[in-house]
Amino acid sequence: MDQLVIAGRPFDSRLLVGTGKFSSNQDMVAAMEQSGSEIVTVALRRVDIDNPDDSILSHIDTDRYLLLPNTSGARDAEEAVRLARLARAAGCLPWIKLEVTPDPYYLLPDPIETFKAAQTLVKEGFIVLPYMPADPVLAKRLEEIGTATVMPLGAPIGTNRGIRTRDLIAIIIEQANIPVIVDAGLGAPSHAAEAMEMGADAVLVNTALADTPNPGAMAQAFRKGVEAGREAYLAGLGSQRDKAEASSPLTGFLRNEQ
Amino acid sequence: MDQLVIAGRPFDSRLLVGTGKFSSNQDMVAAMEQSGSEIVTVALRRVDIDNPDDSILSHIDTDRYLLLPNTSGARDAEEAVRLARLARAAGCLPWIKLEVTPDPYYLLPDPIETFKAAQTLVKEGFIVLPYMPADPVLAKRLEEIGTATVMPLGAPIGTNRGIRTRDLIAIIIEQANIPVIVDAGLGAPSHAAEAMEMGADAVLVNTALADTPNPGAMAQAFRKGVEAGREAYLAGLGSQRDKAEASSPLTGFLRNEQ
Amino acid sequence: MDQLVIAGRPFDSRLLVGTGKFSSNQDMVAAMEQSGSEIVTVALRRVDIDNPDDSILSHIDTDRYLLLPNTSGARDAEEAVRLARLARAAGCLPWIKLEVTPDPYYLLPDPIETFKAAQTLVKEGFIVLPYMPADPVLAKRLEEIGTATVMPLGAPIGTNRGIRTRDLIAIIIEQANIPVIVDAGLGAPSHAAEAMEMGADAVLVNTALADTPNPGAMAQAFRKGVEAGREAYLAGLGSQRDKAEASSPLTGFLRNEQ
Amino acid sequence: MDQLVIAGRPFDSRLLVGTGKFSSNQDMVAAMEQSGSEIVTVALRRVDIDNPDDSILSHIDTDRYLLLPNTSGARDAEEAVRLARLARAAGCLPWIKLEVTPDPYYLLPDPIETFKAAQTLVKEGFIVLPYMPADPVLAKRLEEIGTATVMPLGAPIGTNRGIRTRDLIAIIIEQANIPVIVDAGLGAPSHAAEAMEMGADAVLVNTALADTPNPGAMAQAFRKGVEAGREAYLAGLGSQRDKAEASSPLTGFLRNEQ
Repeated sequence: MDQLVIAGRPFDSRLLVGTGKFSSNQDMVAAMEQSGSEIVTVALRRVDIDNPDDSILSHIDTDRYLLLPNTSGARDAEEAVRLARLARAAGCLPWIKLEVTPDPYYLLPDPIETFKAAQTLVKEGFIVLPYMPADPVLAKRLEEIGTATVMPLGAPIGTNRGIRTRDLIAIIIEQANIPVIVDAGLGAPSHAAEAMEMGADAVLVNTALADTPNPGAMAQAFRKGVEAGREAYLAGLGSQRDKAEASSPLTGFLRNEQ
Repeated sequence: MDQLVIAGRPFDSRLLVGTGKFSSNQDMVAAMEQSGSEIVTVALRRVDIDNPDDSILSHIDTDRYLLLPNTSGARDAEEAVRLARLARAAGCLPWIKLEVTPDPYYLLPDPIETFKAAQTLVKEGFIVLPYMPADPVLAKRLEEIGTATVMPLGAPIGTNRGIRTRDLIAIIIEQANIPVIVDAGLGAPSHAAEAMEMGADAVLVNTALADTPNPGAMAQAFRKGVEAGREAYLAGLGSQRDKAEASSPLTGFLRNEQ
Repeated sequence: MDQLVIAGRPFDSRLLVGTGKFSSNQDMVAAMEQSGSEIVTVALRRVDIDNPDDSILSHIDTDRYLLLPNTSGARDAEEAVRLARLARAAGCLPWIKLEVTPDPYYLLPDPIETFKAAQTLVKEGFIVLPYMPADPVLAKRLEEIGTATVMPLGAPIGTNRGIRTRDLIAIIIEQANIPVIVDAGLGAPSHAAEAMEMGADAVLVNTALADTPNPGAMAQAFRKGVEAGREAYLAGLGSQRDKAEASSPLTGFLRNEQ
Repeated sequence: MDQLVIAGRPFDSRLLVGTGKFSSNQDMVAAMEQSGSEIVTVALRRVDIDNPDDSILSHIDTDRYLLLPNTSGARDAEEAVRLARLARAAGCLPWIKLEVTPDPYYLLPDPIETFKAAQTLVKEGFIVLPYMPADPVLAKRLEEIGTATVMPLGAPIGTNRGIRTRDLIAIIIEQANIPVIVDAGLGAPSHAAEAMEMGADAVLVNTALADTPNPGAMAQAFRKGVEAGREAYLAGLGSQRDKAEASSPLTGFLRNEQ
């Protein structure tokens, strides 16, 4: 089987799902289920992790899904680290999706503070999955200090623009020894398939599922897109050519009989 | 069920498969089967349609697949019409994929001769599926004279470059009342998914399946890509935005507690 | 000198300018002058060619500019031919920019009617510059019947989207023995430069000049863009690479002295 | 006049030129002259700054050009700072183009070490122009600590691929209060024009000039491309549209007379 392995833990699905912005918990659950995902992220700021009746947490079956808390909303390393510690203190697993986004407008990750927080969290034993710019040098440095994955952005969060950082994602994939999970900006199954065809190990999607009339159906579409891209990557995609090549090579009989 | 209907005949699959260039008949059959396709095209020039033992034809189960002969290799309307008539005389159904490609190098379709041949063949009762440039005016004119579909090219045949005529394909889709099948140039499942997300009714793939170490696996990947794109189109894709929108809206608790 | 030669007539400028949609004749004249253009197109429908005091014609110095009447608004070959004949009867030179656009919405050219009108006009001695889809086979056929140029579209008229038909324009350029003038859709000097870098012989711009607060300044910008692209094409552009190449190769001294 | 102002110093040219990789000093000088540039960068590793007869330095007229030494080859902040100090000790102005590129293959900038070196150099009174990833948050942070510009990369050095980080460069430009100079990857005048049309304040080019049979002519082409883009930006570019807008609006006379 072609499994995704993060920090030694195997997963059959290569599609991670975020839980923000759904118009109802039913929609969120439908998206989670239809996606086939095994990892779902939850913003620590939005949940009451000490309360088992929290409206979001109570809808997530933790036997089925790895609950990956994220530090969304943290503006610097200190805030991110504090959120991560709170989550662990409340009994969460030590897995953390690290997000440090000082700019409230584009919500782009801060490379300096992300690196600093990652250093601290790795030392404290967290399994760190950092959201990051599509920056190959930073990706390498994060790998070197021991993050479990890198999660470069395809495009700014919520834009649905697809992989607008393609050249740099390709270098990150080429150089990485840990899973590369393309995060943010993927707005359609074709975007997810493209990331997988490039050799990404997984993708994370949220807005594209939450912001549609039918989250369950869209989640299933992304599931197929991710599988399509992965399978094509494994089967071996042909290279792009400048010249045509006939699918039906000329045999000449048409000419000869004239 | 969301079926593709061509000339009144319903199909569950929206992926058409070409049979050229496979390195073996086993590979060809594997691709056909794994693709889930219900329509396969065969170049009339390459088969002996009067011979039931023809090496290609004998591998195609016509209970399972609609055999769609194509006029590949025809350089003008006259040659194309002649090939189509031969096929029907030999007992084929009157379905014909019309290809008129005078240039042996890029194999691009001739708009004038394609239109002329389509006029003749429609009058003779053929169900005509014309391969054509991504030309919205020509598409409209072909529809008006009664072709069953239009099949605009995404990129030159065999280039694997994807939808390089996107703006024009979008107009064709917007204006068409007959199925739009994107043909040629699709090199990866993400390309097929993108065509379907744009609202294309189906795609045809050949080189991308024939030109890979594992045609069966690649065909399955394309099948999922097509389904992913169609399902996303039906579920309702979000529009692209310039600005970020947080998946995890700021609630302020992190700020307030400080 | 690197001149553009159309039907034996040399031009120093490779930028053609349209005269539609300007908010004033002053703006139109400023754009014409600052563009450095030597060929300006005028819609026959919009002018009274028998009247020397026509408000547009009286602003165009025909010693300086070749007045190129166009058949804009013609919906079929017959209308286009009629317009062209009217222009010649009124004393215009036999140069005609052929436009046949049946669809009032996208104003895309009709390949069949354009070809038919070109056949007639060439036979009648016109110097025909046809606006056309970015269709390499049609381009070749128009060349074969004797048009003076081909004018493939970069994108639908007035969209400012640039060269959205790049792969096909490249093939047209490669195969043409007559000037290739990219027409329609060019919205910025970078688009014009790109066309010239690809090897186009000239470009035609209108909306991008008319639809700006400062048409004269924009026309000068396009002039420089066209010159930049042409000069780069002649100097020899480097190919795109996948890997970095240091501008400042490592000499090692920094390492060695440590 | 529309001048570029860096650290209070005005420049008429918005094209910076690198001096690496030219096949001869004559070619380098021709490129510098034809570019119209007023700022040229020189790799400190490649010159003997204490020696007025150094083969590169002796070819650069410092009355005409601001000599901008760069720290190319530095793998971390410490090496970069040391190179900068050596330059100043040798009598150079305190302007420094900061480059920290640990990876010898793609030569991509290190965000952490670049930030660290910039902090040190700004404190020591240098005027710092940092080469950096197309990372809006990092750009903002560099601005906050007092760098004179930011120099985000368009694509990896030497690839000639143009602006492959467009969405992020656009955000950097929108948010910056210091000049944004697009550096690396620009392979054609159209790329330079595009950067300027987006609102970049300047561009830096090297490989595209050094790696052509005619560096002087190519430099002039880039000069025009930069001017074209800047002038179009100032004149006000139209927005891209989905629908066509006729340059020659239909007046109806053609219809009415029928």
